[in-house]
Amino acid sequence: MLQEEERLGAAETSEGGVAEAQRSRPWPRYLEAALGFRNHWYPALFSHELGEGACRGVDLLGEPVLLKRVNGAVYAVHDRCAHRGTRFSARPECYTADTVTCWYHGFTYNVKDGRLVAIITDPTSALVGKLQIKIYPVQERKGLVFVFIGDLDPPPPLEEDLQPGLLDADMAVMPRGEQQVVASNWRLAAENGFDAAHIYIHRNSPLLTQTRVTLPLGAVMYSREGMVVAEASGPKGIVKGAGKRTPIWEAEIEGVKVAARFQPGQEGVTPFAPDVSMWLPCGLVVDGFPIQGTYQFEWYVPIDERSHRYVVTWGRRVPSEVEAERFFQEIDTRWKDLIVNEFNNDDVAAREGMEAFYSEGDGWQREHLFRPDLLITEWRKLANTYGRDIQRRPL
Amino acid sequence: MLQEEERLGAAETSEGGVAEAQRSRPWPRYLEAALGFRNHWYPALFSHELGEGACRGVDLLGEPVLLKRVNGAVYAVHDRCAHRGTRFSARPECYTADTVTCWYHGFTYNVKDGRLVAIITDPTSALVGKLQIKIYPVQERKGLVFVFIGDLDPPPPLEEDLQPGLLDADMAVMPRGEQQVVASNWRLAAENGFDAAHIYIHRNSPLLTQTRVTLPLGAVMYSREGMVVAEASGPKGIVKGAGKRTPIWEAEIEGVKVAARFQPGQEGVTPFAPDVSMWLPCGLVVDGFPIQGTYQFEWYVPIDERSHRYVVTWGRRVPSEVEAERFFQEIDTRWKDLIVNEFNNDDVAAREGMEAFYSEGDGWQREHLFRPDLLITEWRKLANTYGRDIQRRPL
Amino acid sequence: MLQEEERLGAAETSEGGVAEAQRSRPWPRYLEAALGFRNHWYPALFSHELGEGACRGVDLLGEPVLLKRVNGAVYAVHDRCAHRGTRFSARPECYTADTVTCWYHGFTYNVKDGRLVAIITDPTSALVGKLQIKIYPVQERKGLVFVFIGDLDPPPPLEEDLQPGLLDADMAVMPRGEQQVVASNWRLAAENGFDAAHIYIHRNSPLLTQTRVTLPLGAVMYSREGMVVAEASGPKGIVKGAGKRTPIWEAEIEGVKVAARFQPGQEGVTPFAPDVSMWLPCGLVVDGFPIQGTYQFEWYVPIDERSHRYVVTWGRRVPSEVEAERFFQEIDTRWKDLIVNEFNNDDVAAREGMEAFYSEGDGWQREHLFRPDLLITEWRKLANTYGRDIQRRPL
Repeated sequence: MLQEEERLGAAETSEGGVAEAQRSRPWPRYLEAALGFRNHWYPALFSHELGEGACRGVDLLGEPVLLKRVNGAVYAVHDRCAHRGTRFSARPECYTADTVTCWYHGFTYNVKDGRLVAIITDPTSALVGKLQIKIYPVQERKGLVFVFIGDLDPPPPLEEDLQPGLLDADMAVMPRGEQQVVASNWRLAAENGFDAAHIYIHRNSPLLTQTRVTLPLGAVMYSREGMVVAEASGPKGIVKGAGKRTPIWEAEIEGVKVAARFQPGQEGVTPFAPDVSMWLPCGLVVDGFPIQGTYQFEWYVPIDERSHRYVVTWGRRVPSEVEAERFFQEIDTRWKDLIVNEFNNDDVAAREGMEAFYSEGDGWQREHLFRPDLLITEWRKLANTYGRDIQRRPL
Repeated sequence: MLQEEERLGAAETSEGGVAEAQRSRPWPRYLEAALGFRNHWYPALFSHELGEGACRGVDLLGEPVLLKRVNGAVYAVHDRCAHRGTRFSARPECYTADTVTCWYHGFTYNVKDGRLVAIITDPTSALVGKLQIKIYPVQERKGLVFVFIGDLDPPPPLEEDLQPGLLDADMAVMPRGEQQVVASNWRLAAENGFDAAHIYIHRNSPLLTQTRVTLPLGAVMYSREGMVVAEASGPKGIVKGAGKRTPIWEAEIEGVKVAARFQPGQEGVTPFAPDVSMWLPCGLVVDGFPIQGTYQFEWYVPIDERSHRYVVTWGRRVPSEVEAERFFQEIDTRWKDLIVNEFNNDDVAAREGMEAFYSEGDGWQREHLFRPDLLITEWRKLANTYGRDIQRRPL
Repeated sequence: MLQEEERLGAAETSEGGVAEAQRSRPWPRYLEAALGFRNHWYPALFSHELGEGACRGVDLLGEPVLLKRVNGAVYAVHDRCAHRGTRFSARPECYTADTVTCWYHGFTYNVKDGRLVAIITDPTSALVGKLQIKIYPVQERKGLVFVFIGDLDPPPPLEEDLQPGLLDADMAVMPRGEQQVVASNWRLAAENGFDAAHIYIHRNSPLLTQTRVTLPLGAVMYSREGMVVAEASGPKGIVKGAGKRTPIWEAEIEGVKVAARFQPGQEGVTPFAPDVSMWLPCGLVVDGFPIQGTYQFEWYVPIDERSHRYVVTWGRRVPSEVEAERFFQEIDTRWKDLIVNEFNNDDVAAREGMEAFYSEGDGWQREHLFRPDLLITEWRKLANTYGRDIQRRPL
């Protein structure tokens, strides 16, 4: 009885380097980045979730962060009082617009520079004006609040850490996106989202069957040429469309035929070929999803080693604000439920389904990748090379 | 104040070797076998729980195993796709009788040999026909599906790992047995089940009081002569009946008498003396339980280090199928509830009651065994000697 | 961007040694005492919670302890049978007044000396009269049952481990106190209870606003002179009142004034200046709380490293039993709910709010204490010096 898996043969190697990568695992920094890559920008929440004067705590890459909006601008500080480590967000107190006060002893910090500006219970304390908590650079764009987790000063431009196109002037981005906590490491989410063959899990999704679009069972990548986008000063990513791609419309299992639900050329069906690209630190864009002309933007933001925040929104290039508003309503009424509550749930199941193997077991060593995973190995190599720093506990 | 327990005296030693064993602990392999003994057969489920074409995942000794029935026969494979480690059983997919397909990317394995026979999302993959997942030998006998956890090829005969008599032609075995997950290590379950003195916990069980049988408070074993059964090619076990045994009918606590509920010779009560034996890897049989002529078969199948599956069924030697059916109905209507929901619950409490001391603390070193535990020390020594291999994480 | 906190300056140091202590952390034994200090007396329960003949299990400093009342007196033994480690308290069995019997095999111990006096399932066992489980000294005073956790023989007088005054003849102590389990290490509870500035969290508590008393925002301690009470044979504690204290009635945050709800001298308000002291091993007393002439006694009894039992009761010096009864009724009808369900909940939130920082993170190294924490650093130093021994796992 043969109980060990055989080693992959040369045939596999020649078709794209997956097997070669599988053997040598040229992504050691990626394997260490269970908490994410440091010194990058991450989306923390949607703008509408933080009203004027409001405070909210979020966990980003294992760090507790407090966000507060002051005169329209958002500021972020470490969400622990320097005194005894309690989280401001547990019982937010704000006596002035610029400050947050710790509910425990009244340590009051300016959220713009992190400086201790007052201690209510000891006003003449020598600590006032001297103690300072960490502040985080914040940028708010297109209805999302981005926080820079790291130490670089100044931080790199936000644009370097975003999916291209997101910030374009004509790109309307849906302000009422969705987010949920998923019980898997962020890397499993990124790899699932970018996976060229994972579309198999979606084949019966109401989103696809109702729109009668032709989704192949999988897509094999034969080449990595031109896939990687890594300009000196721009975002670092992998664009699937750049590789040679072969859609799979049917397969056979011991004589039984398995076919995509709708085949190309079939009457009454619509060709559907969204293009996917994956960007550091953790952002995906699907061009042409759910329909042509629409972009689905996703982020897999590390919360801790075993969970991530799955953030989704949509964009479309529009000529006017009226068109933008129409687009947002289209998402709300026609697409959001089908995507968020149906389609994406399959992805969530896949990410959580891998979690035990990778986080408790030695999945990173024992996995057996196949040709369509060329996208994933390219992503790992890119992240390994361009991920600025590895986030480590503790802060 | 004397706060350390005194060492056991010589008197204890001379009566059966318990104290001597207590000192020297001659069962180091048993202490390592928190996950069970490898290269043995284990019951995975009852036959009726797996219909034709059905798939089910079970955890055996820390290994995820998928069972599928094909044309009546049951096959078992590792319940993780070789690709990314997802469990087939999370969303079972079967396009053909012989195969199971991973719901994530369509990796399809023949369940009979574990070979990858197709990948739906990349039909021409070089992995097809080469990648193979572990398969497990399976045998189905007497309404139970047994799986061999190990590497021996061929595996030893199933008969060597079963309670003697179970497979006898005239032994009718109840197909609708019971199983439940219990939160204790499997060894604590085995030791509780085989314990000659643990019957004390059952003294007020409705099963016994309703049948008015005479159960002693405990049974002291004075001798280990002839207890161990370990023929070259047969099952390895300890038979309680082979040792000299003294039933305890009453005891005294500071002048207060404690007596068994029904005494032998008392009017209207029935003598009751079931005989118990314990067999590798984890099977018990109680001969004469719940009544003379009936056998209760039990297994304590390791799930992981802190839990086991408690499997119970019953047997009786019968001359015909009609008698067998009558027996099964007797179990269903008269005994099952009394045993499963009343009697066995005391055992479950005892196993879970020991768990913290043994699994979190150093109970294996600190326990103080007494004479009736001769059965337990003999079992430990037997398991230490004949347990084929120690199961270790990870697979 | 300045992201590291600045070191504390000399100004801080000169005012009481907090900053100096902060730097040198002269309390290494206190840092090790996550499970509490061994060889001290701890309150286990209120007398009324243990009726004649009753048994109860409690966890003290990680040790399971069984309490039983025999002819009025309370005895304590280790709550694990020496045989297989099951807890007596899981299914208490008592055949005689003096004994507890293990429900599993009938091992029966005299609770007064811990000796094994009988084994129901093996009456002639050589272990009888020889095996012995640990017993714990017990004293019952003022409606509370105290247990000595340690090895000293004889144990030091209970009086050394109690808040002064508690045992005074004229001190009526409410027998129906309260206790609850709180999810924080006991040291965080002690430090919160004794903290001179934590009163800020109580500023809107109905207890204070309904009684219209003047509570400052905080109290700054400028001196540690005379604070420590450490007589050779008496309790070891820190008395807040002994240090110079400056109440803070108002503070300013960027021009915004923050003031105590009621100011001294304001019409219709009552001056309110309870004095607090903290005593080894884990007892607090607030003199003048909730009103002048009443003492609130608290204990933070370690259960394990991450939780403690928060015990609260009240005392008042009274001339007669009639007055004592009147006092108890006043507590019941007027104060108990306001204190236990309102006021104390703020403290519980504070203790639990610090837990992650100190128990998962490196809070003991990263905290930034300020002047009012002089009380806390004095307490740490006292506990470091006079805590008799450090409790360690396992027993």
